[in-house]
Amino acid sequence: MAAKISPSLMCADFRRLEQTVEAFERAGVEYLHIDIMDGRFVPNFTLGPDFVRTIREMTAIPIDLHLMVERPEDHLHLFPVRGGDIVSVHQEASVHLQRTLQQIKALGARPSVALNPATPIYTIDDVLDDLDVVLVMTVNPGFAGQKLVPATLRKIANMKRHLADMGYGDVEIEVDGNISNENAVKMQAAGADIFVAGTSSIFKKNADLLELTERFRASISSIA
Amino acid sequence: MAAKISPSLMCADFRRLEQTVEAFERAGVEYLHIDIMDGRFVPNFTLGPDFVRTIREMTAIPIDLHLMVERPEDHLHLFPVRGGDIVSVHQEASVHLQRTLQQIKALGARPSVALNPATPIYTIDDVLDDLDVVLVMTVNPGFAGQKLVPATLRKIANMKRHLADMGYGDVEIEVDGNISNENAVKMQAAGADIFVAGTSSIFKKNADLLELTERFRASISSIA
Amino acid sequence: MAAKISPSLMCADFRRLEQTVEAFERAGVEYLHIDIMDGRFVPNFTLGPDFVRTIREMTAIPIDLHLMVERPEDHLHLFPVRGGDIVSVHQEASVHLQRTLQQIKALGARPSVALNPATPIYTIDDVLDDLDVVLVMTVNPGFAGQKLVPATLRKIANMKRHLADMGYGDVEIEVDGNISNENAVKMQAAGADIFVAGTSSIFKKNADLLELTERFRASISSIA
Amino acid sequence: MAAKISPSLMCADFRRLEQTVEAFERAGVEYLHIDIMDGRFVPNFTLGPDFVRTIREMTAIPIDLHLMVERPEDHLHLFPVRGGDIVSVHQEASVHLQRTLQQIKALGARPSVALNPATPIYTIDDVLDDLDVVLVMTVNPGFAGQKLVPATLRKIANMKRHLADMGYGDVEIEVDGNISNENAVKMQAAGADIFVAGTSSIFKKNADLLELTERFRASISSIA
Amino acid sequence: MAAKISPSLMCADFRRLEQTVEAFERAGVEYLHIDIMDGRFVPNFTLGPDFVRTIREMTAIPIDLHLMVERPEDHLHLFPVRGGDIVSVHQEASVHLQRTLQQIKALGARPSVALNPATPIYTIDDVLDDLDVVLVMTVNPGFAGQKLVPATLRKIANMKRHLADMGYGDVEIEVDGNISNENAVKMQAAGADIFVAGTSSIFKKNADLLELTERFRASISSIA
Amino acid sequence: MAAKISPSLMCADFRRLEQTVEAFERAGVEYLHIDIMDGRFVPNFTLGPDFVRTIREMTAIPIDLHLMVERPEDHLHLFPVRGGDIVSVHQEASVHLQRTLQQIKALGARPSVALNPATPIYTIDDVLDDLDVVLVMTVNPGFAGQKLVPATLRKIANMKRHLADMGYGDVEIEVDGNISNENAVKMQAAGADIFVAGTSSIFKKNADLLELTERFRASISSIA
Repeated sequence: MAAKISPSLMCADFRRLEQTVEAFERAGVEYLHIDIMDGRFVPNFTLGPDFVRTIREMTAIPIDLHLMVERPEDHLHLFPVRGGDIVSVHQEASVHLQRTLQQIKALGARPSVALNPATPIYTIDDVLDDLDVVLVMTVNPGFAGQKLVPATLRKIANMKRHLADMGYGDVEIEVDGNISNENAVKMQAAGADIFVAGTSSIFKKNADLLELTERFRASISSIA
Repeated sequence: MAAKISPSLMCADFRRLEQTVEAFERAGVEYLHIDIMDGRFVPNFTLGPDFVRTIREMTAIPIDLHLMVERPEDHLHLFPVRGGDIVSVHQEASVHLQRTLQQIKALGARPSVALNPATPIYTIDDVLDDLDVVLVMTVNPGFAGQKLVPATLRKIANMKRHLADMGYGDVEIEVDGNISNENAVKMQAAGADIFVAGTSSIFKKNADLLELTERFRASISSIA
Repeated sequence: MAAKISPSLMCADFRRLEQTVEAFERAGVEYLHIDIMDGRFVPNFTLGPDFVRTIREMTAIPIDLHLMVERPEDHLHLFPVRGGDIVSVHQEASVHLQRTLQQIKALGARPSVALNPATPIYTIDDVLDDLDVVLVMTVNPGFAGQKLVPATLRKIANMKRHLADMGYGDVEIEVDGNISNENAVKMQAAGADIFVAGTSSIFKKNADLLELTERFRASISSIA
Repeated sequence: MAAKISPSLMCADFRRLEQTVEAFERAGVEYLHIDIMDGRFVPNFTLGPDFVRTIREMTAIPIDLHLMVERPEDHLHLFPVRGGDIVSVHQEASVHLQRTLQQIKALGARPSVALNPATPIYTIDDVLDDLDVVLVMTVNPGFAGQKLVPATLRKIANMKRHLADMGYGDVEIEVDGNISNENAVKMQAAGADIFVAGTSSIFKKNADLLELTERFRASISSIA
Repeated sequence: MAAKISPSLMCADFRRLEQTVEAFERAGVEYLHIDIMDGRFVPNFTLGPDFVRTIREMTAIPIDLHLMVERPEDHLHLFPVRGGDIVSVHQEASVHLQRTLQQIKALGARPSVALNPATPIYTIDDVLDDLDVVLVMTVNPGFAGQKLVPATLRKIANMKRHLADMGYGDVEIEVDGNISNENAVKMQAAGADIFVAGTSSIFKKNADLLELTERFRASISSIA
Repeated sequence: MAAKISPSLMCADFRRLEQTVEAFERAGVEYLHIDIMDGRFVPNFTLGPDFVRTIREMTAIPIDLHLMVERPEDHLHLFPVRGGDIVSVHQEASVHLQRTLQQIKALGARPSVALNPATPIYTIDDVLDDLDVVLVMTVNPGFAGQKLVPATLRKIANMKRHLADMGYGDVEIEVDGNISNENAVKMQAAGADIFVAGTSSIFKKNADLLELTERFRASISSIA
């Protein structure tokens, strides 16, 4: 699979949202990552359904919705989900993970389970039928600008191998947290397919977003 | 007191954030209202500390921060609060309201208590020393575009009288929810001082934001 | 207003449900009271939506649904509510009481707020526009067979007077908990309109349900 | 082990409870399954301790109590549990699973752990000493009439093998959710011992309960 | 009523617990105040049932147990309560306040309701039959060494008058938080009866506990 | 590694705290174990930060802090943690275990994860980089004086082997719950390194604490 890029809009300069989305269209990114936080599953707040709707009106790039909320099954209905989108819910956030993934599939989207750094990969063994993507958090969720949890590199490799062993080699692995060009290369080598690009790679003060996105793409393409 | 306007940025077109803020600077609005939701105190999500920081960098207009979250005392530290800002926490959201208001005051900001439509005005009798503003919700919080709860008009008047009776006539009354030009006039007559302006008055598709804001100002100024 | 009877089906002998409902039809009771408990708002469990549906199929007597659950707004959609039914939610269970009452009204039913024995009557002052009934709990909710909290007799009288003073004299007062024939008479004198009849009056082992219901009716009719 | 049947009384016609229990006595079912829901662990409400007591008075068939509630350790004391009964608590619902299972054993009953479809089988490895039964949910709990989660068939087989590998081959496997005659046969082949029979097999409108129960018995007996 | 002293054992030097209790016996204090915190109702932890038991074995002075915990009804059974003790539960912590006060009375102790600084006095109007003491918090609970919330002085006076007006003039008023000798005198003038003595009055480094306690007693006795 | 002793101060006689600590200094215990309970993660309350501070002032023996609380990340800041201390948080109590362990490390202390009896050992596979100690609960936490959960002996051995297999043989295994001299010997044989000593071994009425501690030391030293 070719590497896919999912820029984290939480890191975008909201004063220049139109230019930002335009740059991503030109760069041909595969997804636009939008983080939703409830102040309880993670200790922060970010964006909401209205922001998703605004992005929808601006572009046809699929949304990559990351619900960092407790009981995501109670909140899913708020979001304008569409075919081709990814919707990630956390393994740690729901006791009805299988039902929630089915609800996402019923909306036409690609179901995904996100795992915090401390969460073992085999916790999702019984929902592998129900997901298209696994989101391996490479930092603890809640804030931009954190340092990579080193053990997560090995976790990506373990996940890749485990998925293949279980007969689910076509499940894509997404990675989120401190995805610098250098880290992305290592993660890709370990098995990552979708890269959430934030302040470590493409969102830099006084730098060209399109150029940085293309450079990021080049990093992860060179080894494919 | 002259009427003050606090446009609800949740209703703004995020594709044109710079023009939006510029229009509000030209219109001379007194505050910029920012709603924070946790998906639990209210069934929705909106914005977060990063958005507040973005607005800070764009303008010197004070922020009017509305925390629609459970246990606001646990989250206050996330926000870049500054002297002159208003910070509203809900009476229904905390058992340590007096401490939370003191924390807001310690940050140099103007403490405010927000009341849901069902919450009686005398629930705040024991924190009148600790607040500068009372935010009377005129719809149930969580969504833009709702219809006025009629009984809240009477509630504003009751609040105005009650504050005067208790010797706190200088506490300002803010109103939030379906604040159309017409409703604003009635609310001002009832005692409202600060008006959260949203989709009912100034944010309309294909209409000039500055012009609508000036028209809104004119409505509430004509009777002062 | 003529006194109304709402037998508490939680107290019924489930082995004889058809005869029970038949007796209530013959006795002409105005409502059938059904308690829903979540083990958290009250420390017990009882019945659910399926039971409500079963009763619906058996009779046209309106349901008097008493939701003893936290956040009733999250659960209301489960129940087959119909025009003429009463739906009671607890003042202590929701911070969005006004919205929840409006949702009940939108279903065509009669909205009601229930108050635990410790909850003051003025906590509902701001939702008097939104309710048809006030349910004064005369025991702490959760179990059948409890003893009357004596202060609640005075509370009924206070509620009656307060409703009249506020201009809401047409709001009905329902009472629930240890409603024996003797207590019912006192409560009616204090202002009660709707009586939840349980093990203290009509549900007795080896006694005739219809006869006891008629005797209960006679008690509260003699003083009307 | 011979297959055992545990009809789900949640699916029974409450207008004919006596005939229902009588039919089950004649059919010789091994258990009567009673679901308790708290509206929070699962999004529904059903029955409670009073209903368990009513069934107790009607028959000596052991109860198979399924607590779909958060923190079951806080609620266990409400139920009239007896020697020979099964009591299932969810793995996902308690951080003190071992203590809760011991409390069930101390009441003389057979302790059981229930697993939602998404919950891996090895989450119970450390309580195998403490349980007699494992309840594998074959739908997400909360409602009757749902469709089988296909992966749970494989899960039953994995559980059977895993229990044997760990030296706990005598632990019985119970299955609950869309247990039609056809599914039951497959589940039995995979290792299931106790079958919760609901609307997919024995409870059908205008059909004979005893006959359907006997037919269900025949299905799962033919392959033993 | 003569003023009563209830030293807060949370402030005691645990290295000298025997001498501490001995000093209090010699000083003739009426109660020993013990704070229980759950880290959620208040953001701190202190002591527990074992500590209460230890004090019990050391002295016959009644315990004044202050439960700063959510849902005190779930925890009351842990504590060795005895006739003559005071047990305070918070108005903000339970929706079943009347039941909880009755449970305290059933243990033979004196029921009390504690009010945070922000909580209005009329929230307890419907449980005045059920309590012997009202605990007016004069700081926000959770920590020793805080500064008096000034408005609470007026609140004590309002409470005193309100209790008399309601016909409950014999209910004692306890005060807790920054009870220095000077503040105690003002509070006594306002109507306080029982004084929780902590670091503001009797617990001082390198000072004689007995002497400070006697001096505290003298302050509040001189004006009786 | 030589066996280490961590006396549980919850079991100490608070009337003789100075003598207790002195005895432990003479006995050369490696840690002093302090339990913090929130009444929710475990159904009890014990000690708090003030007690930790008191012990700090009395001795240089490192503290072994056991946080039996939900969301330990919210409470860690309350405690005066120091280099050389152990801080244990529960696997079941936090969804951000890796972040919390890093916070403990940032304080200079030794991070530890505690596992309830029902919690499988592989739940911590992804945080092995982040911890120095694993605390295997050998009873269900919350109370002194409970009986050993037999399966936990095997769990210690499994943990020992698993840690070695994963390349983390230097992680120490701590055990807590019914650690009698006899049980300690078996646990040491299974792989335990640090022993929480309570009422089963060193705290006995009318017995010499120092002598019992030395006897306990002798038991676990004889087989090293």
